[in-house]
Amino acid sequence: MEKAIEELRSAIGEDAISTDDEDLLRHGYSEWSSINIDQLPVAVVYPQSTEEVSMIAKICLKYKIPMIPYSGGSSLEANFSAPYGGMSIDFTHMDKIVALHADDMDVVVQPSVSWMSLNEDIKDSGLFFPVDPGPSAKIGGMVGTSCSGTNAVRYGTMKDWVINLTVVLADGRIIKTRKRPRKSAAGYNLTNLFIGSEGTLGIVTEITLKLTVVPQETSVAVVTFPTIRDAAAAASKVMRAGIPVAAMEIMDDVQMGVVNKAGSTAKKWKEMPTMFFKFSGTKAGVQENVKLVKAIAKTHKSGDFEFAVDAQEQKTLWSARKESLWSMLALRREGDEVWSTDVAVPLSRLPDIIEVSKKELDSLGLFASILGHIGDGNFHESIMYNSKDPKERAAVEKCVKDMVDRALEMEGTCTGEHGIGLGKKDSLMKELGLDTINVMKSIKSALDPHWLMNPGKIMDFPS
Amino acid sequence: MEKAIEELRSAIGEDAISTDDEDLLRHGYSEWSSINIDQLPVAVVYPQSTEEVSMIAKICLKYKIPMIPYSGGSSLEANFSAPYGGMSIDFTHMDKIVALHADDMDVVVQPSVSWMSLNEDIKDSGLFFPVDPGPSAKIGGMVGTSCSGTNAVRYGTMKDWVINLTVVLADGRIIKTRKRPRKSAAGYNLTNLFIGSEGTLGIVTEITLKLTVVPQETSVAVVTFPTIRDAAAAASKVMRAGIPVAAMEIMDDVQMGVVNKAGSTAKKWKEMPTMFFKFSGTKAGVQENVKLVKAIAKTHKSGDFEFAVDAQEQKTLWSARKESLWSMLALRREGDEVWSTDVAVPLSRLPDIIEVSKKELDSLGLFASILGHIGDGNFHESIMYNSKDPKERAAVEKCVKDMVDRALEMEGTCTGEHGIGLGKKDSLMKELGLDTINVMKSIKSALDPHWLMNPGKIMDFPS
Repeated sequence: MEKAIEELRSAIGEDAISTDDEDLLRHGYSEWSSINIDQLPVAVVYPQSTEEVSMIAKICLKYKIPMIPYSGGSSLEANFSAPYGGMSIDFTHMDKIVALHADDMDVVVQPSVSWMSLNEDIKDSGLFFPVDPGPSAKIGGMVGTSCSGTNAVRYGTMKDWVINLTVVLADGRIIKTRKRPRKSAAGYNLTNLFIGSEGTLGIVTEITLKLTVVPQETSVAVVTFPTIRDAAAAASKVMRAGIPVAAMEIMDDVQMGVVNKAGSTAKKWKEMPTMFFKFSGTKAGVQENVKLVKAIAKTHKSGDFEFAVDAQEQKTLWSARKESLWSMLALRREGDEVWSTDVAVPLSRLPDIIEVSKKELDSLGLFASILGHIGDGNFHESIMYNSKDPKERAAVEKCVKDMVDRALEMEGTCTGEHGIGLGKKDSLMKELGLDTINVMKSIKSALDPHWLMNPGKIMDFPS
Repeated sequence: MEKAIEELRSAIGEDAISTDDEDLLRHGYSEWSSINIDQLPVAVVYPQSTEEVSMIAKICLKYKIPMIPYSGGSSLEANFSAPYGGMSIDFTHMDKIVALHADDMDVVVQPSVSWMSLNEDIKDSGLFFPVDPGPSAKIGGMVGTSCSGTNAVRYGTMKDWVINLTVVLADGRIIKTRKRPRKSAAGYNLTNLFIGSEGTLGIVTEITLKLTVVPQETSVAVVTFPTIRDAAAAASKVMRAGIPVAAMEIMDDVQMGVVNKAGSTAKKWKEMPTMFFKFSGTKAGVQENVKLVKAIAKTHKSGDFEFAVDAQEQKTLWSARKESLWSMLALRREGDEVWSTDVAVPLSRLPDIIEVSKKELDSLGLFASILGHIGDGNFHESIMYNSKDPKERAAVEKCVKDMVDRALEMEGTCTGEHGIGLGKKDSLMKELGLDTINVMKSIKSALDPHWLMNPGKIMDFPS
C-alpha cells in the first residue's frame, strides 16, 4: 500500500492523495448508514479526470488494492464502506457539467454533480432531470445504487434516465457503454448493468443523462387519513385508475411529528397518516387529476386536501418530505443511531405490508416511522435506537429482518432504491437464490477477476 | 447431432423434434430479413415447459450443439438464423398467459404469447401492454431484440416493461432475475442484461410484464408536410415542447404510395411526407395536446390535420402504419427482396440525417422508403431490390452502410430497435469500439463458455 501511494503521488500529484485520519473516517463511516464497521479505507484519492482514474485503477490492480468510489456519501447501506481497507476514490474534483445538449434533451456530467445543483444550473433551458433521491446525493452514487425518489412514480428510476456511461474497468481500460441516442438496441445493455452495481464492476467517471421538459403547472397537496391502511389503499386505487400523479408520498403519524418538531414548515401538522401529492402538467390536466384523486381519497375517509398556496410553499412542503431522514437524525440524543431501510412489493400488497410493519414498529417501543414512495410499492422504515444497547440493536435488527422477509414472501424485493451494500447481502441471497447470485458472481469475476472493485458489497467472494 | 436428437426424443418425446426440410427452412430463412445465409438449423425442438428447455440445454451442452430460440420469427437482422447449424428452439407450445395480476398491474407470460393477442385477452381488466412492434412479434423475441414500436415515445421500450425473466442458462440451470416488485435496486440488473442479448446469454422461458391503464380517450390524426425535413423538424419541436403525444410517426411519399397501393385504408392519401399522430389521455388533455401540436405543425407548413372519425378508423389508420413493411413486401416482383433496417440519433440531428438519407435513397433509383418513430430519433429505411443482381445488392448495401455510418458520426446507434443479429456486427464494433465489445465478450464467455447460445449473433467468437 505504501508503495502504491508513492506511485500514485508521482503519477497524479502529491496533493491528490490523503491519509489524514479525519478524511479516512469521513470516507468509511456514515451517521445515516444502517451498518458501520471498524475498518476504514487506507487512503483517499481525488482524481481530476477519467484518465487519472484509469491510472489509479492500474496502480491498484498492480498492488491488489480495493477501489471504492465515493461521491455524495449519502447512501444508506454502507455502500461506500471499506471492509477490506483499500483506496477510496473521491470524485470531489470531478463535479462539472461537461455539455448540455438542450436540443437533444440530454446533459453530460461528471460523477460529483449533485442532482439538485444540476437542475438549478440548467433551469433556463426549460429542462430538468427528474430523479430526486436525498438532497445530498450525487449522480455518480445515484448510478451506483440505481436510486430513485419521489418522482419515480411518474418518471421512473435512475435506470430509465441514463443514456451512456464512461467506465474505468478494474484493469484501467476506459469504455463507453453507448453513444448518445435516446434509444438503442445495439448489443448488451451495459449501461443498465453498471447502474445498480454499486461500483463493483467498474468506476463510472462520466454520465450522459436524459432530460425532460419542466411541466407548465405544478400543484402540491397534503391530506390525512384515519389509518395508514386507508392511505395505502387509496394510493393503490390512484395507480390502478391510471391517474398520472407526479408524486404520491405517504408519511405516518410519527414522521409528521418529526416534521412538526423540525419546524421546517410554518404550519403545525396533524400527527396522523398523511399523503403528499404532487400534480403536474398543463393547467387543465392538473385540475382534472386533482379532482379524480380527491374522489378516490374521500372513499378512503380522507380529510380535506390542503394545497400549497404558491411555488415557495410547494417547495417548503416538498422539502419537508424530502428531508425527513435528516429531520429525524437531528432529533437524536447522544448515542442514538437511525436505521433507515427500504423494501418494495407488488402494488396490491402494499396496504398489508405497511399495516403489519407499522404495528411491529410500534411494538418496539422506539421512535420509528414509516414513509414511502407508495405509488411504486416502495416504502422506508426509519428506527431510532441506542447503539450502545445490544438488546435494543438486536430488537431493531429483528424488526427490519422481519419486514424484509415479509416483503420477499409477498414476491417483493429487499430494496427498492437503496441497494444492497454491506447490509443486505443475506436478504439478496434469500430473494434471488444461489443460482441467480452465481450468475452475478460470474459477471463480477469476468470483469474484475481479483474482486478489487468495492469488494464485500452486494455479494461475498466466491467460496 | 444424431445422438443428441435421439437423447432429446427419449427425454421430451418423439414428436417434440422435427428435422423436416420445410420446418428447417422456416426456422433458418426469413423473407423480411436483411440477410439470409445458406446454413439452416439441423433440427427444431418444440418444448412445452421451462423444465424441458433446461433438458434441451443440458443435452445441447453435452454434444456442443448451438441453441437458437425462436418465437415470432419476425426479426429483421437474421437474429434467429443458424450460421453454425444447431438446434432451433421453437416456443410454439409455450404460448400461455400464466397469470394476470390486475391489481398489481402485471402479467406473467410464456415466450410465444403475441403482444397483440395479449392485449386482446386482458382488455377487460382495463390494462394493456404498450410495446407495439410489428404485428407478428411475440414476447420472447421482443425481449431478445429489446424491441419497441410506435408507442415508445410515450411509454418507452421493452426494457422499461419487464419485471422479471425466467432464463435457462447454457448449462441448463434455471434462474429468475427478480421477484415481482415494479421497482428494485437489489443487485445486478440481470433482467436488462438479458433483454436485447438476442438469446446469446440464455433462453428466456417466462416473462413478467408491467401493464398500464388504457387511456380514457384516443385520437389519431394524419397531416402532410411539403418536405420530409419540415416533418422531422416539427417532430423535434413537439418533443422539445414536452407535449405528451402517444405516438408520432413519419412516413415519406413512397411509403404513403405503398399504403395507397396496399389499399388497406378506404381513403386515397396524398403521396407526400406525412406524419401520423396518436393522442391519448383524458378528453381535455387530448384536446389540449392536439391544439399545441397543430400550432407547431403550422409553423412548418403542414397541411390540415385529418382526424379519424371513430375507433374503427383509428384502428385502420394505425394499422396502415404498422403494416407498412408487410404492405411493401406484398408489392415485390419475382426475385425482389426488401432490406429493412433502422438507426437512431440524438433528437436534434434527425432532420439532417433523414434529409440526406432520403436523397441517397432516391438516387439509388429503386423503390425505397423512409418511415420512423421520429419522437425517439429512430427511423427505418426499406429498400426493394433484385436479389439476383449483385450490382444492385452492392449498391443497396453501400447505401445502408452509409446511413449507419452517418448515424454513428452523429453520435447515434446502428440500431434503435431491431438489434444486431448477423447483419450489423461490424457496425456495432464501429459504434462502441473494441474495449466495449470485449466487455460484452467477457460476459458472454462467463455465462456461455462454449458459445453455444445463438452463436454468431451480436459479435463473433473471441479470436
